[in-house]
Amino acid sequence: MTQLQRLVISSSQLQGQQIELTPQQQHYLIRVLRLVSGDRFIAMNGQGQSWLAMLSGAQAQILQPISVQTELPVTVSLIVALPKNGFDEIVRQATELGVTNLIPVVSDRTLLNPSPQKLERWRKIAIEAAEQSERLIVPEILDPMPFSQALSSDTNYGFICEARGDLPHLLSCWQDTVKTPHQSPQTTITIATGPEGGWTPAEVESACTAGFQPVSLGKRILRAVTAPIVALSLISAAVEQEQGNMVTEEQKPEN
Amino acid sequence: MTQLQRLVISSSQLQGQQIELTPQQQHYLIRVLRLVSGDRFIAMNGQGQSWLAMLSGAQAQILQPISVQTELPVTVSLIVALPKNGFDEIVRQATELGVTNLIPVVSDRTLLNPSPQKLERWRKIAIEAAEQSERLIVPEILDPMPFSQALSSDTNYGFICEARGDLPHLLSCWQDTVKTPHQSPQTTITIATGPEGGWTPAEVESACTAGFQPVSLGKRILRAVTAPIVALSLISAAVEQEQGNMVTEEQKPEN
Repeated sequence: MTQLQRLVISSSQLQGQQIELTPQQQHYLIRVLRLVSGDRFIAMNGQGQSWLAMLSGAQAQILQPISVQTELPVTVSLIVALPKNGFDEIVRQATELGVTNLIPVVSDRTLLNPSPQKLERWRKIAIEAAEQSERLIVPEILDPMPFSQALSSDTNYGFICEARGDLPHLLSCWQDTVKTPHQSPQTTITIATGPEGGWTPAEVESACTAGFQPVSLGKRILRAVTAPIVALSLISAAVEQEQGNMVTEEQKPEN
Repeated sequence: MTQLQRLVISSSQLQGQQIELTPQQQHYLIRVLRLVSGDRFIAMNGQGQSWLAMLSGAQAQILQPISVQTELPVTVSLIVALPKNGFDEIVRQATELGVTNLIPVVSDRTLLNPSPQKLERWRKIAIEAAEQSERLIVPEILDPMPFSQALSSDTNYGFICEARGDLPHLLSCWQDTVKTPHQSPQTTITIATGPEGGWTPAEVESACTAGFQPVSLGKRILRAVTAPIVALSLISAAVEQEQGNMVTEEQKPEN
């Protein structure tokens, strides 16, 4: 079976059962993917809804809504101190792992402030990666901000990852402290990973003051581009595992 | 405090308390790192031993052995179907995550067989990444082999990761089936991750016949370069978490 191609559309393109395709989208579907009128693809609005659609000239017809669940059961925000290189790949992999918001921050040891072009590029990568990983939601990439500002937003569970020291492991912290969390999209988890050279002691202290728990990601030194992916892998797996357990509990016969 | 630089040496370079440096190593220490006689660095033999050393002309003196534990308590082998691009980054990140052996395999959907130059390059990357992540062991990158051959080596726990289907999550499988494993370097865990497009049904079947358990890495589709890092993040965290628990049990007062 051929895998259907995916295309992110904006909700304003939807007119009843019809999708008005932009010239770029027509080019992509017809020239790049080589679809012809009558061919099917999946249209998604990037905010949780998707439809089976059929190409029809410069438009597309909606055939039926699609109901799949590829999103995490909770909201996960990732605060990442901007590394010198490799943020493109962080955006791509974090999207694959189900992140809800990505917050690039300027930390004490961050060397550069990204250009608006970079930000535009990251948002495009997030759309592509959401399509490829079959997500329904395109993660939001926030404008870069100072670390202190990122710490000020409300979260239910906050973790700041540090390279050294005898800190408890993120996975243990999650599984020990948050045994049976109430999982809903209103439950927010925020993870912060540092730049090359790590967070400064002052930054760790201000995160702790803001309610973040300092955690380790293991005994080896991870690069700034690896740490966010490791942290997200653990949290995504833990919440999907708990979701699986809850479903199993609910399905148990009552005897 | 300045972080000491690390250098991998071969055991044959060690003569008593003296390290005979190769011209490349002298160039690296003196020209690249700008060390002078009397400066200290960490020498490691890539097989689990490391020493505090002092540069002394074209040689180095061993001052004392270093005892740190940054290695996983078990042997982890990663079988990776060679992706079109991105294997360099898999080698780098897998090394940071503590992998013991990396086995590149040619699968049914693999497009190319790597050149000997590529293999040489991957082995160099593994050395660099072991130094940077402060590991004592440089992971072995095996010569590429057919998937069937990689399946034939003995392992205590084998997992083959698949993108789709309602498979149990790798983290659940590990934590449910392997509750209190006997952790030693003789305990081997082998994880296999597929190429773009995934394993073929025949490949999954032959892995199951070889005793591998089919597992999921979550509900989203991961790229071939992301899946091995996610799988390793989970296994590394789980075994280090269990190691931490075992230490805690042993340290408990008897009352």
